[in-house]
Amino acid sequence: MENRLNRFRIIADGKKFKKVFDLNDPKPKGLPNGMIKNDELEQIEVGNSFNLGGKRFFVLPCSLQEYIMEYMHRKTQIIYPKEAGYILLNLDIFPGKKVGEAGTGSGALTTILSRAVGEKGEVHTFERRSDFAEIIQRNLEACREYDNTVYYNKPLQEFEFSPEFDAFFLDMKYPWEVLFKVDAALKPGGRLGLLLPTTNQVTRIISTLQASGYFINEISEIFRRGYKLNAERFRPEDVMTGHTGYLVFASKLINSKE
Amino acid sequence: MENRLNRFRIIADGKKFKKVFDLNDPKPKGLPNGMIKNDELEQIEVGNSFNLGGKRFFVLPCSLQEYIMEYMHRKTQIIYPKEAGYILLNLDIFPGKKVGEAGTGSGALTTILSRAVGEKGEVHTFERRSDFAEIIQRNLEACREYDNTVYYNKPLQEFEFSPEFDAFFLDMKYPWEVLFKVDAALKPGGRLGLLLPTTNQVTRIISTLQASGYFINEISEIFRRGYKLNAERFRPEDVMTGHTGYLVFASKLINSKE
Amino acid sequence: MENRLNRFRIIADGKKFKKVFDLNDPKPKGLPNGMIKNDELEQIEVGNSFNLGGKRFFVLPCSLQEYIMEYMHRKTQIIYPKEAGYILLNLDIFPGKKVGEAGTGSGALTTILSRAVGEKGEVHTFERRSDFAEIIQRNLEACREYDNTVYYNKPLQEFEFSPEFDAFFLDMKYPWEVLFKVDAALKPGGRLGLLLPTTNQVTRIISTLQASGYFINEISEIFRRGYKLNAERFRPEDVMTGHTGYLVFASKLINSKE
Amino acid sequence: MENRLNRFRIIADGKKFKKVFDLNDPKPKGLPNGMIKNDELEQIEVGNSFNLGGKRFFVLPCSLQEYIMEYMHRKTQIIYPKEAGYILLNLDIFPGKKVGEAGTGSGALTTILSRAVGEKGEVHTFERRSDFAEIIQRNLEACREYDNTVYYNKPLQEFEFSPEFDAFFLDMKYPWEVLFKVDAALKPGGRLGLLLPTTNQVTRIISTLQASGYFINEISEIFRRGYKLNAERFRPEDVMTGHTGYLVFASKLINSKE
Repeated sequence: MENRLNRFRIIADGKKFKKVFDLNDPKPKGLPNGMIKNDELEQIEVGNSFNLGGKRFFVLPCSLQEYIMEYMHRKTQIIYPKEAGYILLNLDIFPGKKVGEAGTGSGALTTILSRAVGEKGEVHTFERRSDFAEIIQRNLEACREYDNTVYYNKPLQEFEFSPEFDAFFLDMKYPWEVLFKVDAALKPGGRLGLLLPTTNQVTRIISTLQASGYFINEISEIFRRGYKLNAERFRPEDVMTGHTGYLVFASKLINSKE
Repeated sequence: MENRLNRFRIIADGKKFKKVFDLNDPKPKGLPNGMIKNDELEQIEVGNSFNLGGKRFFVLPCSLQEYIMEYMHRKTQIIYPKEAGYILLNLDIFPGKKVGEAGTGSGALTTILSRAVGEKGEVHTFERRSDFAEIIQRNLEACREYDNTVYYNKPLQEFEFSPEFDAFFLDMKYPWEVLFKVDAALKPGGRLGLLLPTTNQVTRIISTLQASGYFINEISEIFRRGYKLNAERFRPEDVMTGHTGYLVFASKLINSKE
Repeated sequence: MENRLNRFRIIADGKKFKKVFDLNDPKPKGLPNGMIKNDELEQIEVGNSFNLGGKRFFVLPCSLQEYIMEYMHRKTQIIYPKEAGYILLNLDIFPGKKVGEAGTGSGALTTILSRAVGEKGEVHTFERRSDFAEIIQRNLEACREYDNTVYYNKPLQEFEFSPEFDAFFLDMKYPWEVLFKVDAALKPGGRLGLLLPTTNQVTRIISTLQASGYFINEISEIFRRGYKLNAERFRPEDVMTGHTGYLVFASKLINSKE
Repeated sequence: MENRLNRFRIIADGKKFKKVFDLNDPKPKGLPNGMIKNDELEQIEVGNSFNLGGKRFFVLPCSLQEYIMEYMHRKTQIIYPKEAGYILLNLDIFPGKKVGEAGTGSGALTTILSRAVGEKGEVHTFERRSDFAEIIQRNLEACREYDNTVYYNKPLQEFEFSPEFDAFFLDMKYPWEVLFKVDAALKPGGRLGLLLPTTNQVTRIISTLQASGYFINEISEIFRRGYKLNAERFRPEDVMTGHTGYLVFASKLINSKE
């Protein structure tokens, strides 16, 4: 299966303008200084540049991260790359793994999981809300490289699992309500990750995990501090993201009390 | 090829003790309260626990990240998971990619790259210093899941490249000296990442990249703030890592001046 | 001398609305739900509240910090409380001290210094630019509690000093140009503080200070992370200030080479 | 009254060695390379340097902050300068103010408050535990500049107050137990500050303050990131303090429900 993002391009001026464009969409692309026709853009090799209205624009490949951050349709707070990369390593997610996720949200992390587990891996993602369905399907389709992802528009509680999942990630308001399901789905020693915005949720999940026979590995926050790209006046950006959420990582124990 | 880390175990008491053990090593394993024989440990299923000297110990699978952080032999400052995950996403590293790295150091990032690109991917890692050779080989061997990684104990400057690499990562003191080689190795639009500890190095590499026809995507620092695993007294850990390095990400342009 | 800020009030609703009002200005005060007459507001004791348009508003005293952050007219980036408090302690600024400052900017730090050194202290502040003059005078006047502050609308270079200052603070683009003047003004062992936005400025001032016979005490950044005032959903604010500047603190040595 | 810290000296080598010495103590002072007699040290003007064992040492005045951080006897976690300065500004503490504090701990913040309010101000500090008494008295004595501080070795609950305090600071485990006393002591609109290490304490105090008729101004954490003093290799220090506590600031309303 082809990587659909090969048909996407970044156009950037190296200053403030940076935008993702889809070559599958035949419409001309609007830039700060004018328009470029889609088939003209298609002719420009990635890494090359063109002039428009006296300004130089660079044409670059679109990474999955750039697609997510700059282009993905969202109805929800998404999981940012600073957390997503850390989640991959903490849940030991690599090619061939079988991974679960609830809730799907806009599907940002889902597309990253799908790429990371590769063609022999599997991603099963659960979202109870139906108003995200169209966006999720569009995003999964756009980023599709492997046919390895199943999206269920139903709550996790309605499914029966056997312990086959290597890892499970929960991004939901009341994760303690579904822990018994995750417990049934994870292999012994399998890894659970959660993102929780408030400390109240974190203290509650610590208690629940400890009472349910999970081993808590760590609780972390990840920050990114961006810098201005100026060699003569090197300094951090004025504003940074102050909070996305607390990351909780645990391992499933055998005979955990459900 | 088998994942060698399947023969490693984490033993932890859920308080302060957490250690990685290698089942391939037949020696008994020393714990705070006594010893456990290797073949006894081998009998205990991951996710299970055992009692020793009145204390309960949990036996858990060892992730690549845990191997790196808790067990890997190091002679150098390694790249931590907080940065490694972010590097994977920023360099768009997924199964099937061809990735270069210089210098290898202790091989921590190398093992992560190897896992991430999977069996159809390739990792080429270059380290000029010979005093790391044994450690690198031992670490690559221990984490080996795919036969996809080549380690060259020679400086990058001695090689001839054609533009076949999707991404390249540089963790070295004077990266500006090898940029012309990376330039020859990267595909057009290919991605370059660097880790640099000092602001002097960063300002110098900004100038060099801009003069050499690279497009700089971003410069970032990544922080991790850990929390104590206590529901009744939830609070951050007293000490945190204050600095590892500045991450610089750039894309190779066509006709860049070498 | 009276504290002028006694004639200022904070009006806040405990949610998002918080604003500073001046009772010396006889005009009615505009609130989200309507207006309150100035003499009505004057009748309300601080700590009390009133209803307007179905909403409750609290009347609180205005601190110097609130005046600076919420009301002060600015033409420049000001020094924030997170840095100002740290500067006071690092420069050992307490009642009775004689303190210099260049450049004045909008006068935010000046008013804090004036308060901190009290009636027996002295603040001398220097600003070469004349376009800030009116704002500086208005701000110093509004916050006046002691008649201890002199503002000079001239560059530091035009003055002759004898070594009588306990401390000096520099908030300017090219501080190395005026170091010889600060050197003449500081007592032996006197303390110098600087705020510098870029790392290039910091590395240059380190070299200059070391070559000019200063003892550098520390270089620091100060961050503030705000939290939402919600007991059931306690969490940090979404956005935080990513950068104001690097603080450099040094002590003047005897026989320093100018 | 004299500033006792005038009889203290910092001796530092500009590298790693930095220590506070008391000239009132006639014993010779031990340095990395040998000893200097007390009366020799007394002869050296601050700002000057001396050679000992082939190494140069600088003699500098000792600030209150340096005394606290480098010399003060402690039996408790103290309040650091990064928080102390921010507390001064948020509680609007300046010369002439009447300020309360409970518990005293080792007296670090007490000495800062005493200096900040000056000779016309007052500090009343309350500590129920008697095992800190000797340390508190020694620290207050050493830093004494004004005769403006009263230390009570009794719990706050045993006192009767009338509303005369401009500000009150609480650094104790169960601050909600004494809020009714603070309430009686603060002027209308008076300012309350608290330092709390855990989020559980913070969520509890938010509820209590809101139920007791306080207006919460803000909740903040303050971080300090130190940098190495090296112009050619400018970079942050490897380790930083990850947590001291959450700062809560509130104002007393009239008719607050006790």
